[in-house]
Amino acid sequence: MAASIKDVAKEAGVSIATVSRVLNDIDVVNEETKEKVLVAIKKLGYRPNIVARSLKTQKTSTIGIIIPDISSQFYPEIVRGAEDVANIYDYNIILCNTDLDIEKEMEYLKVLKEKMVDGVLYMSNSLQKDIIDLIRELEIPTVLTETIDEEKSFPSVTVDNLKAAYEATKYLIEKGNKKIAYVGPNDNNVNATSLRYKGYKKALLEMNLEVDQSLISFSGIKAKDGYAAMEKVIDNSSIDGIFCASDEIAMGVINLLRDKGIRVPEDIDVIGFDNIYSSSIFYPKLTTISQPMYDMGSVGMRMLIKIINKQPLGKEHYVLNHKLIERDSCKK
Amino acid sequence: MAASIKDVAKEAGVSIATVSRVLNDIDVVNEETKEKVLVAIKKLGYRPNIVARSLKTQKTSTIGIIIPDISSQFYPEIVRGAEDVANIYDYNIILCNTDLDIEKEMEYLKVLKEKMVDGVLYMSNSLQKDIIDLIRELEIPTVLTETIDEEKSFPSVTVDNLKAAYEATKYLIEKGNKKIAYVGPNDNNVNATSLRYKGYKKALLEMNLEVDQSLISFSGIKAKDGYAAMEKVIDNSSIDGIFCASDEIAMGVINLLRDKGIRVPEDIDVIGFDNIYSSSIFYPKLTTISQPMYDMGSVGMRMLIKIINKQPLGKEHYVLNHKLIERDSCKK
Repeated sequence: MAASIKDVAKEAGVSIATVSRVLNDIDVVNEETKEKVLVAIKKLGYRPNIVARSLKTQKTSTIGIIIPDISSQFYPEIVRGAEDVANIYDYNIILCNTDLDIEKEMEYLKVLKEKMVDGVLYMSNSLQKDIIDLIRELEIPTVLTETIDEEKSFPSVTVDNLKAAYEATKYLIEKGNKKIAYVGPNDNNVNATSLRYKGYKKALLEMNLEVDQSLISFSGIKAKDGYAAMEKVIDNSSIDGIFCASDEIAMGVINLLRDKGIRVPEDIDVIGFDNIYSSSIFYPKLTTISQPMYDMGSVGMRMLIKIINKQPLGKEHYVLNHKLIERDSCKK
Repeated sequence: MAASIKDVAKEAGVSIATVSRVLNDIDVVNEETKEKVLVAIKKLGYRPNIVARSLKTQKTSTIGIIIPDISSQFYPEIVRGAEDVANIYDYNIILCNTDLDIEKEMEYLKVLKEKMVDGVLYMSNSLQKDIIDLIRELEIPTVLTETIDEEKSFPSVTVDNLKAAYEATKYLIEKGNKKIAYVGPNDNNVNATSLRYKGYKKALLEMNLEVDQSLISFSGIKAKDGYAAMEKVIDNSSIDGIFCASDEIAMGVINLLRDKGIRVPEDIDVIGFDNIYSSSIFYPKLTTISQPMYDMGSVGMRMLIKIINKQPLGKEHYVLNHKLIERDSCKK
């Protein structure tokens, strides 16, 4: 039978109210009494009822993480970074997979509110108005990770997707390539991948290369999507470089090229984006833009815990550094 | 301002106690009154305080998932399967990464108990006595996933690792290979990978092949570990087939062979284990043993929810089907 607060009070020879004051760190208990209570707690192995305390303090030390899909190649490392920081500060995380389904996102937000989470770390391709309104209505402290809202009304941590894609494309151009393809999504909003598409076009224009629609193939986000999208444009063009909006897409693209007998990087340079774990196991090892995924999760969680505890944030919007990783899918 | 239970009582023209009885589904309220209360709840958008109710019912509709590392290639899909089932039955999951650190596992179990989770889905390489004792002491309903305890005292869902590894090795032998290497961990206990090592040896002995220590290279679980372990044995032997205890190890092994100018499958057949997502994107596409990872998570969660709700389990120990997937890393 677990010890109760009454047992602790009896053991320490004080009132239940005094034990409660020690537990809640209210500073009116003298040191000697406090010590007696702490000794009794230790001796009896007493654990306060966190749920009961949550009702009183309106804090649960629990944080919701809303992501599209933990089984994708991208989110596990972000979640790991977030959970490690949560653990350091004695928070736990409730994980919610939404598949980008807005109904599911809203349902999760409501449940998280009911379960009195202290805050939410929110990841999605984009932040729709219905979601913004709901977060405001529910009054849950929220930090966006790898997601922004156009009005920048929520604190966020991201990378500069446009600039990174610009640099990746420029890298291909500086290798002497002139017919540079784009394979990736085109969503017409503020999504990360749309910004990458914009960065690709910006580099071409600045370097006086034409944005040639026959070199652009829009795709989904999986390797098989990259494979299928590449198949559509490879035969009718003289592509010499390919910027892919993600590593998974790049792997699908390279597999298509291999099946067509085209060598990477001897015949075509390919660059990816993300630096997911398997990009350095794939053959050829992918040249790519590294996003600090673990850091995005950990910085986002740190910001959120600061907000929950009413500590000042250094900045409202953190833009973490990306890095071009040279491996074997582009010529040396 | 959110509606309170008092507002609902006023709106419905009944007492707070009556509203409470309706909310807690206590069957002494007549249908007409119940209807009035439900209409008032809907009209005011009232949401009961789940945390307060949890204290009363001793249920939180929250389940802890304890895993080694969500950022590995293996666990995300299991967690996804588990969360999808949890979501169907209106449970949420608290995710805990332990890195197989027993202190961290024990700390998480205690915190989960304090947060009054209704149950725990536990995944680890092995189940140590200290953890078994703690789970018993804390009296948390627990289901083991891809983990067993030697005494089979907890319900579990696994695959038959020994049999699957036996079949994989036999497949290599039936291709005409005679010098079959093993690359993988050897932990000397009931871990999944140890059972795979046993299955490898069993197949050799049954097919009258010698268990040759010069063909066996113990490794960690990452691709780089497979690469390094293969490097140790490749030069002094005439290996023609390799059974790897995981796909990631197999990818490292194949990368080493490629760097040595050895072709897969023309010179050596390689078979992996797990069928992780990237095994069909890798070049060559891996022949492997498929574990139903999503199903392991979803079946484990379904079992746990049945236990929590005191429903009968069909079986205490589910052994899910594995499957040999023929792709391109073994000769046709």
